[in-house]
Amino acid sequence: MKSSNQQSTRQEPAPAPAAAAEPTSGPLTREELQLAARNHSMPLEALRRELTPPGLHYVLTHFDIPDLDASSWHLRIGGAVERALELSMAALLRDPAITVPVTLECAGNGRSLLEPRPVSQPWIMEAVGTAHWTGVPLAYLLGKAGVLPDAVEVVFTGADAGIQGGVPQQYARSLPIREALRPDVVLAYKMNGADLPPQHGYPLRLVVPGWYGMASVKWLASIEVAKAPFPGFQQKVAYRYQESVDDAGTPVTRIRVRSLMVPPGVPDFFTRKRFLRAGPVMLEGRAWSGEGAVTAVEVGIDGTWLPAHLDKPVGGYAWRKWSLPWVADPGEHVLACRATDITGASQPLEQDWNYQGMGNNVVQRVSVTVE
Amino acid sequence: MKSSNQQSTRQEPAPAPAAAAEPTSGPLTREELQLAARNHSMPLEALRRELTPPGLHYVLTHFDIPDLDASSWHLRIGGAVERALELSMAALLRDPAITVPVTLECAGNGRSLLEPRPVSQPWIMEAVGTAHWTGVPLAYLLGKAGVLPDAVEVVFTGADAGIQGGVPQQYARSLPIREALRPDVVLAYKMNGADLPPQHGYPLRLVVPGWYGMASVKWLASIEVAKAPFPGFQQKVAYRYQESVDDAGTPVTRIRVRSLMVPPGVPDFFTRKRFLRAGPVMLEGRAWSGEGAVTAVEVGIDGTWLPAHLDKPVGGYAWRKWSLPWVADPGEHVLACRATDITGASQPLEQDWNYQGMGNNVVQRVSVTVE
Repeated sequence: MKSSNQQSTRQEPAPAPAAAAEPTSGPLTREELQLAARNHSMPLEALRRELTPPGLHYVLTHFDIPDLDASSWHLRIGGAVERALELSMAALLRDPAITVPVTLECAGNGRSLLEPRPVSQPWIMEAVGTAHWTGVPLAYLLGKAGVLPDAVEVVFTGADAGIQGGVPQQYARSLPIREALRPDVVLAYKMNGADLPPQHGYPLRLVVPGWYGMASVKWLASIEVAKAPFPGFQQKVAYRYQESVDDAGTPVTRIRVRSLMVPPGVPDFFTRKRFLRAGPVMLEGRAWSGEGAVTAVEVGIDGTWLPAHLDKPVGGYAWRKWSLPWVADPGEHVLACRATDITGASQPLEQDWNYQGMGNNVVQRVSVTVE
Repeated sequence: MKSSNQQSTRQEPAPAPAAAAEPTSGPLTREELQLAARNHSMPLEALRRELTPPGLHYVLTHFDIPDLDASSWHLRIGGAVERALELSMAALLRDPAITVPVTLECAGNGRSLLEPRPVSQPWIMEAVGTAHWTGVPLAYLLGKAGVLPDAVEVVFTGADAGIQGGVPQQYARSLPIREALRPDVVLAYKMNGADLPPQHGYPLRLVVPGWYGMASVKWLASIEVAKAPFPGFQQKVAYRYQESVDDAGTPVTRIRVRSLMVPPGVPDFFTRKRFLRAGPVMLEGRAWSGEGAVTAVEVGIDGTWLPAHLDKPVGGYAWRKWSLPWVADPGEHVLACRATDITGASQPLEQDWNYQGMGNNVVQRVSVTVE
């Protein structure tokens, strides 16, 4: 890291709750606004695009964006391996590369719609994006290092450092061995064919297709194969489905099925309400699931659900385009969309509340005035 | 525009106030959060970089980001000219090009710090960014078209459409002829050497160095040379320094002098408070002014002001780097920075309130815990 004033920090077992305050029905706090100003979501009109460019793709950064120099940067691979490795970017670029299309979504997407509202990054519903990620398959590098038979997890540590829940830490997450060895898990150095932007993990990040974004560790500094489950803050405290602060909960893993719509017509600047001329309009959007293929999208028009046309799947865990022609007649309308995936899971019509505000895939509703 | 469901809109004289509600001391509204989720600021650690990449550079979009096809796009130049022109991107790319380094800042930067708070996009203080903009000098194209002697302004209209203050409109702004003919005003098709990203005005935008960002019209569709002052909403209603809703006010034009600091140390995730080890640390940041060169930056350490070192100016209206070594001793500290420009203008220590929350260049203060 170029900056001289970063603290060195160590990962320690977490004594503190994940949230800084209890869920509230009160107004947004200054701290939540600060987070909303730092982290950005994807404007919904970007759903028209199969791939999301930097600046439109959502970004969540727990701490500061590190300022890393690729020429001096090294990835360390160690722990329960036969051969510890230390790899430069030049070395990684000589390894075989794959490109995977992946829809990434923040696990906290939809949080600010919950009632009461868990107090953290106040996403509405657009914390998503899809990109082509290019790099070395993680399985290939783990093969090079040789995973010992009693290994159970792989721990990924980023260069981003700070304090959360009272715990000084570098951002770190683990994956079970079986997930780490999936052929589509990639150590990416390119996004949509260009070097990673700083905010997306330059020079190297993990991308775990199908999992919520917290698994895809950015600014990757080290990979440690572990013989015991990782006790880090982002694993054991944050990113859990909990009923209350006292509930140990269950870990957040794969992305719940969701669909979103390009809001039709034009917006009012301040209210973001939509205005549309009467007549035919093509409603369109994208749908995705980390549990497998999206098999159906229904569009709700004033409470009546109609099946949408689905384009061919792009493959992997990338979103799938849907569309439905609508003849808009004058008046006030409420549009909605609801996806189902191959497991039979559908988006809920009402909130499925949890303490940290994770995985809220409630259906999107768009109010439109037709003139 | 690819989308079939955009309303055609006309610019009309504006009957409505610029703000959707009166300034308030109350909590942030849902509408303000929606705007904060759509529009993003620059994380302050990006002040380490001379140039700001897409995704870190601030973005404000009044309506939706248009989805334009450069191959069918044309720029129309008309009004009080000798020869109306209609130019394709291919034609523009054959014209002589310049590259200008420019710091752009939103006129509403600092708004949410004001008390009472004008209700609109709730910027804190990071709505800024610096890029190299490459394209055709506007003066060159105006020369090609031939400006008639009685012209007074040039009106720029973007493809982005919606409703603001009750007025259906395409985003449009004007410049006085003398500003439009400045040699550094550019019709840009590249940002930092790459095609414009969608959110920065693809395929073509205006960049007016020294002026707040509202002048640099994105998704440029037409240029109209006018014989009378432009009465559009974004000119006559929005972007004015007003004392109250009834005050006609004065137009917002050039960027007021400002400096910002990279917050030292590491953050707490939720509060964004800073934590730093005792010892030497280099405080650094950037300073800029649309009125001319930055001539001094002072750094406040617990209320004592010290002169910072200034790097050589980059030139034009790009920000200038400053730095000051500090030996941090344990305890609570408040850091601040304050720039002065060649006109003698300095940043205010207390807010200079106005009704729309424009041009709030109050000094930044950063609280740091040194351990």
